[in-house]
Amino acid sequence: MKKIYFTPGPTELYPTVAAHIENALHEDICSISHRSSRFKDIFKATRDNLKILLEIPDNFHIFFIGSATEAMERIIENCVQHKSSHLVNGAFSERFYKTALDLKKEPQKIMASFGNGFYEHEIEIDADSELICVTQNETSTGVALSPDFISRMKRRHPEKLIAVDVVSSVPYAALDYKFLDCAFFSVQKGFGLPAGLGVIIANERCIQKAQSLQEKDFDIGSYHNFPSLLKQAQKCQTSETPNVLAIYLLGKVCADYLQSGLSEIRKQTEIKSVALYEFFENHPQYKPFVKEESFRSHTIIVSETISESSSMISRAAKQGFIIGSGYGNYKNRHIRIANFPVHSLDNVKSLLVYLR
Amino acid sequence: MKKIYFTPGPTELYPTVAAHIENALHEDICSISHRSSRFKDIFKATRDNLKILLEIPDNFHIFFIGSATEAMERIIENCVQHKSSHLVNGAFSERFYKTALDLKKEPQKIMASFGNGFYEHEIEIDADSELICVTQNETSTGVALSPDFISRMKRRHPEKLIAVDVVSSVPYAALDYKFLDCAFFSVQKGFGLPAGLGVIIANERCIQKAQSLQEKDFDIGSYHNFPSLLKQAQKCQTSETPNVLAIYLLGKVCADYLQSGLSEIRKQTEIKSVALYEFFENHPQYKPFVKEESFRSHTIIVSETISESSSMISRAAKQGFIIGSGYGNYKNRHIRIANFPVHSLDNVKSLLVYLR
Repeated sequence: MKKIYFTPGPTELYPTVAAHIENALHEDICSISHRSSRFKDIFKATRDNLKILLEIPDNFHIFFIGSATEAMERIIENCVQHKSSHLVNGAFSERFYKTALDLKKEPQKIMASFGNGFYEHEIEIDADSELICVTQNETSTGVALSPDFISRMKRRHPEKLIAVDVVSSVPYAALDYKFLDCAFFSVQKGFGLPAGLGVIIANERCIQKAQSLQEKDFDIGSYHNFPSLLKQAQKCQTSETPNVLAIYLLGKVCADYLQSGLSEIRKQTEIKSVALYEFFENHPQYKPFVKEESFRSHTIIVSETISESSSMISRAAKQGFIIGSGYGNYKNRHIRIANFPVHSLDNVKSLLVYLR
Repeated sequence: MKKIYFTPGPTELYPTVAAHIENALHEDICSISHRSSRFKDIFKATRDNLKILLEIPDNFHIFFIGSATEAMERIIENCVQHKSSHLVNGAFSERFYKTALDLKKEPQKIMASFGNGFYEHEIEIDADSELICVTQNETSTGVALSPDFISRMKRRHPEKLIAVDVVSSVPYAALDYKFLDCAFFSVQKGFGLPAGLGVIIANERCIQKAQSLQEKDFDIGSYHNFPSLLKQAQKCQTSETPNVLAIYLLGKVCADYLQSGLSEIRKQTEIKSVALYEFFENHPQYKPFVKEESFRSHTIIVSETISESSSMISRAAKQGFIIGSGYGNYKNRHIRIANFPVHSLDNVKSLLVYLR
């Protein structure tokens, strides 16, 4: 039986991925030197496709790293001397905050309860904070903050850097890069790719901050500090031998998305998410976890379950529907359903027919 | 025309890799959760196969990271408070040393000229050094230090930690893990796999050192510090979503190697390296770069070329033989030929027929 993975990542592979891998093997992509012109062409194609797809302005650089978790570490190392401020409303925003603690910074934590988002007027960023860290789409709870919210934060704090976790909302989230300094994601979610690649999108202000820390003799890391990443990226290269296959595949799936058109992908995403929330609103066994509609993620849909979710998840798996469990303490009380470009309206409909 | 990659890594894929990838796709390895029991089984199988293959004792842990370059950073972060000592005789040992500088340590540099190795009696390790970093096989110059040399270093400095770079010699190098504390490699060389995975093999003393630095409030990194890596590895998990496919493939190729038997792989490696060095000794256009025979690597064979190597390399490429150029300043004066398990005696013979 063909399974469909609705898990929040790793998830179902985008349908073109197997053919792209076959092609990569045929073309020796995994054997070529990462210093060769062929690799540089791959780097450039992926970077350019990504910039076009996500409408990333020219003053931003694209860095390829190992994971979104690594992105959190590198951003704190390179953009914070003493203090970052973190909007924490779930496990991944908490991880970003804890990363700053691990790296011996003195981060500010601004909390909302799990399942909630933030209201601008309730947020007081410390004056001496250098970086505001926002988890735009909290994968653990299914709460999304609007791109407008992020733009307003930036307008209020133009002198501070803003870093945005879009791990589970890219490419759906319509960020306005004029109002942020740094964003990051990994490829095993919205791009439907095998895990093992993270992407940092960082503007000149982030580079300048890293350089100023370096000049003050702070430890900003080694091969993956921003000046090193930039120096290599300007040559379409990387410091280390990177995950060449993943960089190649990301470029190919970006090209596929460009062919579908991002506005169509976004429209489809919303049609599917509306269907999912409507179902959970109206079914006696379920209840959307996020009560405030404006905070509901379109890409990670979280529902409370009346009975233990684990048995329901195992039953669904037997029918080929692989659904995510709740995160952490909610493991057995929630289900999480990913709504990525890989998940077609037909996939979602058949899931809902089954759940009904 | 089928090409053969004799490049020092990335290199030719091991012949079973394409089938393992196909199988992984068929079994949804790229979609399963990295918190699932299926992932834990993959982690365990790879770890166990690796420990059997390389005869790694029980008091060592296996950590999966992004690259060998990352390994250098993590080892310095976690095993050095102030000073590491580096035997530097090429670009990669130099990188290890520079990593320590980047991380604000005060490393000791012990140099040998490129193309040379080290004699024990010439080495004076500073008394206050905490970690001795040895590049067992210098990929840039084709110089190897014997496993015995490393064991003797450890006997002379039992109180210090020893970290060994075996990036381009694993699994050939017959290390005695009783006489080292940490080793690391990446998978795109001796394992003939796609790049994007590094492996750290670290014993309890390394963990204790990291813990003691952590207790003293030093910055030892975040998600990939040794205590975090250990905590997750003990559950057969990783902190971040890792390169699941690469971990799976490494386990499979280890199993393939176990079937061939490592002693047979080592024997074949030496037969091929003897043939290569003999050829370069006797051909008027070539001369082995490493003069002292006992320092000659069996896995990375470097030869000087009488004329510019670039034109010779392009001609060979047209015949399907992809050969590595010299490293750095030697780019146009050397060729580098990888002699990994993927390279059969027949491959090497046909290369030599062509070069003749």
